[in-house]
Amino acid sequence: MDNTHEDLDILRDKVRGVTIQIMRAVQERMELARKIGEVKSRLGIDIKDEKVENDIRMTVMSLAEEIGMSTEFALQLLNVLLAESEQVQVQKSEQRVVEKQTHLSIFSKARQLEASGKKIIHMEVGEPDYSAPARVGAALADSFEMKHYHYTDTQGIAKLRDAIATKEGGGISRDQVVVTPGGRFAVFSAITSLLRAGQEMIVIEPAWPAYKECADFVGARTKILRTTIENKWIPDTKQMERMINSSTKMIVLNYPNNPTGKVLDDKIMEKIVLLAKDHGLYLLSDEVYADYVFGEFTSIREYDYAKSIVIGSFSKRYAMTGFRVGYGIANKDIISKMARVQAVAITSVAEPMQRAALAALEVDPSENVQLMKTRLDYVCSKLKKMSLRYIEPEGAMYVYPELPNGDDLTIIERLLEKGVAIAPGTGFGDAYKRYVRISACQPEKTLEKGLDVIASVIREDL
Amino acid sequence: MDNTHEDLDILRDKVRGVTIQIMRAVQERMELARKIGEVKSRLGIDIKDEKVENDIRMTVMSLAEEIGMSTEFALQLLNVLLAESEQVQVQKSEQRVVEKQTHLSIFSKARQLEASGKKIIHMEVGEPDYSAPARVGAALADSFEMKHYHYTDTQGIAKLRDAIATKEGGGISRDQVVVTPGGRFAVFSAITSLLRAGQEMIVIEPAWPAYKECADFVGARTKILRTTIENKWIPDTKQMERMINSSTKMIVLNYPNNPTGKVLDDKIMEKIVLLAKDHGLYLLSDEVYADYVFGEFTSIREYDYAKSIVIGSFSKRYAMTGFRVGYGIANKDIISKMARVQAVAITSVAEPMQRAALAALEVDPSENVQLMKTRLDYVCSKLKKMSLRYIEPEGAMYVYPELPNGDDLTIIERLLEKGVAIAPGTGFGDAYKRYVRISACQPEKTLEKGLDVIASVIREDL
Repeated sequence: MDNTHEDLDILRDKVRGVTIQIMRAVQERMELARKIGEVKSRLGIDIKDEKVENDIRMTVMSLAEEIGMSTEFALQLLNVLLAESEQVQVQKSEQRVVEKQTHLSIFSKARQLEASGKKIIHMEVGEPDYSAPARVGAALADSFEMKHYHYTDTQGIAKLRDAIATKEGGGISRDQVVVTPGGRFAVFSAITSLLRAGQEMIVIEPAWPAYKECADFVGARTKILRTTIENKWIPDTKQMERMINSSTKMIVLNYPNNPTGKVLDDKIMEKIVLLAKDHGLYLLSDEVYADYVFGEFTSIREYDYAKSIVIGSFSKRYAMTGFRVGYGIANKDIISKMARVQAVAITSVAEPMQRAALAALEVDPSENVQLMKTRLDYVCSKLKKMSLRYIEPEGAMYVYPELPNGDDLTIIERLLEKGVAIAPGTGFGDAYKRYVRISACQPEKTLEKGLDVIASVIREDL
Repeated sequence: MDNTHEDLDILRDKVRGVTIQIMRAVQERMELARKIGEVKSRLGIDIKDEKVENDIRMTVMSLAEEIGMSTEFALQLLNVLLAESEQVQVQKSEQRVVEKQTHLSIFSKARQLEASGKKIIHMEVGEPDYSAPARVGAALADSFEMKHYHYTDTQGIAKLRDAIATKEGGGISRDQVVVTPGGRFAVFSAITSLLRAGQEMIVIEPAWPAYKECADFVGARTKILRTTIENKWIPDTKQMERMINSSTKMIVLNYPNNPTGKVLDDKIMEKIVLLAKDHGLYLLSDEVYADYVFGEFTSIREYDYAKSIVIGSFSKRYAMTGFRVGYGIANKDIISKMARVQAVAITSVAEPMQRAALAALEVDPSENVQLMKTRLDYVCSKLKKMSLRYIEPEGAMYVYPELPNGDDLTIIERLLEKGVAIAPGTGFGDAYKRYVRISACQPEKTLEKGLDVIASVIREDL
C-alpha cells in the first residue's frame, strides 16, 4: 500500500480526537476523585487508601496485558493519575504545609541563636566534636604542594577506591566503588538513578529524612513501615511483605539506625534480603554508622545479594563531616548508574577532600568508637534517672527516648530558649511526636549540662 | 446529604470504569502513533514534528480551560503521552544508541592511554595548567588548624557569599548567592528545581553538554537553536521566538561561549532578555568564563531581569577545577529552590574548599587572563597557517575551528594515536561533526607540539 501525506493527515486527526477523548475522561476521573475526597472527609477517612490503590493497579496491569499495552507505561500513566487524584482530594485548607522540623532545621535555628549571642549546647546534630586525624591535615597540605586539585575520575581516584575496597573487604574491586560528596550524595544518586516517578520505595521509620527527600526528587513514592519502641524498633517483615506491589522497586535499611541506635539481628536481616530477592527489589543499606557498633553487626554485603547497595562515609568515623566524602558500594552496573548522576551533577568530588579521605583510612577509629560508647552509656544512665523509656543503643551516636508528656516541638522550643538543642522525633517520621533524638557528639561535661536542662524541662507542665 | 461507605463504593466503581476507559483510549492513541511512525518512515519524514506537537498542545490547553481542568496537569499528561508516542514511533533498529563522545570521554580515554605509558598532550579539557594562588594553600592549612571542617549553611558560609556578592557587584545580598560544588551543580540545581518533566528549555548550540544532561535528568525537553560559523555563532532571535510555546520555561545562555569563544553584543542580549520577559521564561546565564573576556562583555545581571540566574565558578578563573567550588546568583526565591536541591543531594559544600575559595577571591586573576589571551592568539595564528576556518575567540579558553575534511571522531582517533587529545565538535551538538574544540590550557611550547601534530593529521587523506 502506498502512503501519502493525506493518510498522515487522517491519522493525525484521529490522534487529535482520541487525545480529546482521553482528556475528557481524565477530567471525569478527577471530578469523581474530588467527590470521593468530600465523602471521605465527611466520614473521617484517610485520603490515601493503599488497598484501593493496589486494586486499581492490579486492574490496570491485567488490562494492559489484555490489550497489548506496555505495563510499565500503563503503571506510569496510572501513577500520574493517582498523584493528581490525591492532590484533588486534599482539601485546600489541608494544603497549608507547615515546614517540617528536622535535626537540620533545629541546627540552623540554634546557629541563628548563637549568631545573636546565645550559648547553645548542640545535642541535635550528628557531628562529632573531636578532631579529624592529624595525618588528614598533612594530606591537605600535600595535596596543595603536589597540585592535586584537578578533575578526577567521576567515580573517584583509583587509590582511594582501592583503599575503600580493601577496608570493606570481601573481594570488591574499584569498579564497585563510587566516591561521593558525603554519604548523602551516594543515597541521592542511588535512589534517583534506580527509581522513576510513580515507583515505590519502602522505608522503615523512624528514619533519616533524606531517603524520602531523594525519592520525592524524582517523584517516586515512599511507603512507610513504622516500628515501635514496644517492639524494640524491630520491623515486622510480614507487614513489609504486604506493602510490596508491582510498583515497589527498593527497600531502604539503615542499621546501626539513626535515630534509635538499633541493630537488627541476622534472622530479620535474612528475611528482608529474602523478600528483596523474591521480588527483585534493590536493597539500599545505609551503613554510615557501621563503625559505631557495640555488639554484633552484619553488613548487607555479607548476604551477597546482587541488587544491594551499601552506603559508607568518612563523616562520622573520623569526625570529617565537613570534608563531604562518602561512598557507595554495589555491582558495576548499579555503580555506573550512580556515577552517571555524579557526572551530570558535580563532575567529581574535590580532589583535596579525596586525598584527605585516603589519609584518614590509615587511621584506626576504635578510640572514637570507645569514646562514643562511653558517652552513650552516660546519656542512657541520665535518661534512666529521668525515668524515660528508650532502647539501649547497639550502635550509632544517638538515643531516642520517649517523652513522658507533651510533644517534641513544644519541648524543643523550650529547650532552645534554655540553650539546649535536640532533634524532634517527628523529623524521623510523623508518628513520633512523643520522641526526641539526643546526639552524644559532645564531651561528657557538656552532655551533663544539657541533660540537666532536659530533665528540668520535661518535669514542667506542658 | 448523608454519605455512607456505600456511596464511596459506588464512586470507586465509577473511577475504575473511567480508568479502564482512559487506558483503552490511550492504547488506541499509541496504535495510531505506531501507524503514523510507519507512514512517516515510508515517506522519509522525521519522527518529531514541532508544528504538530504545538498544535495538539494548543488543542489540549484550550480544552482544559473549557472543561475546567488544570492546564498544568493537562500539559503534564499530554507530555507523558507525547513521549510514549515518540518512543513507539521510533523503530527498534534506530534505538541502538552509540555512546556520545564529549571532551570528558576523550579526557578519560587520554588518561587511560597515559596510564598505559603513552605521553599525551591535553588540549581536550578546560583545565588550566597554572597553579592555584599560593594563599589558597595557606587557607587550606588554616582550615585544618581552625577545625573548619564541619557542616556549613546549605547556601555556603556567610563570609564567602558576602565576598562573592561584593565581587559580582550591583547590590546583591548573601541571600541571593548559593555556593555549589562547582558551577555544574549550580546549573544542575537551577534546571532541576525550575523545570519539570515535559517542560521545555532552549539551548543555543554548539553548547556545553551539561545543560541538556540536567534537563534530561528531570525529563524536561531541550530545544536546540543551532548557530553557524557563517553567522559568526550569533543566534537568530526570530527563530528563538518561534521555538517558544506554552511548555517553554527557560532559555540557557553561555557567554563567553564554550566552545566557540563567542561573546554576544548588547543588542542581541537585549532581544533575548526581552523574549524571556515577554514569555515569563527563566534565563540561565552560565558566565563561568566571565573573567576570560578580551573585549566587552555584559553580564545578564546588568539587564535586571528577576527570572535570571547567573552561574559563576572558581575553576577557570583561579585554576581551581579540582576544588569544585562554583555559585549561583539569582533572586531569593530561585536561590532557595536551588538550595533545596543542594540540601537534598549534598547537605553543603566541603568547608575547607569554601575557605580556599574565600582566600582566592583576594587574588587578582588578570595575569591568568592575559596568559590565556596570548595562548589563544598563538593557537589562532597556527590555525590560520593551516588555513582552517574559525572565529577569533572574544573570551573563554578555546578555539572551535572547522575541519577541512573528515569528521571530528576520525581525526580525534588519529590524533590520540599520535599523543594529542582534542575535543570532538559533536560533543557540543550533533550538527558539528566538521568541528573540533582546541583548549589553550597548556604552555605555548606544548600547544606548539600539539598543533604541529594536528597540522600533519588534517593534511592526511581521510
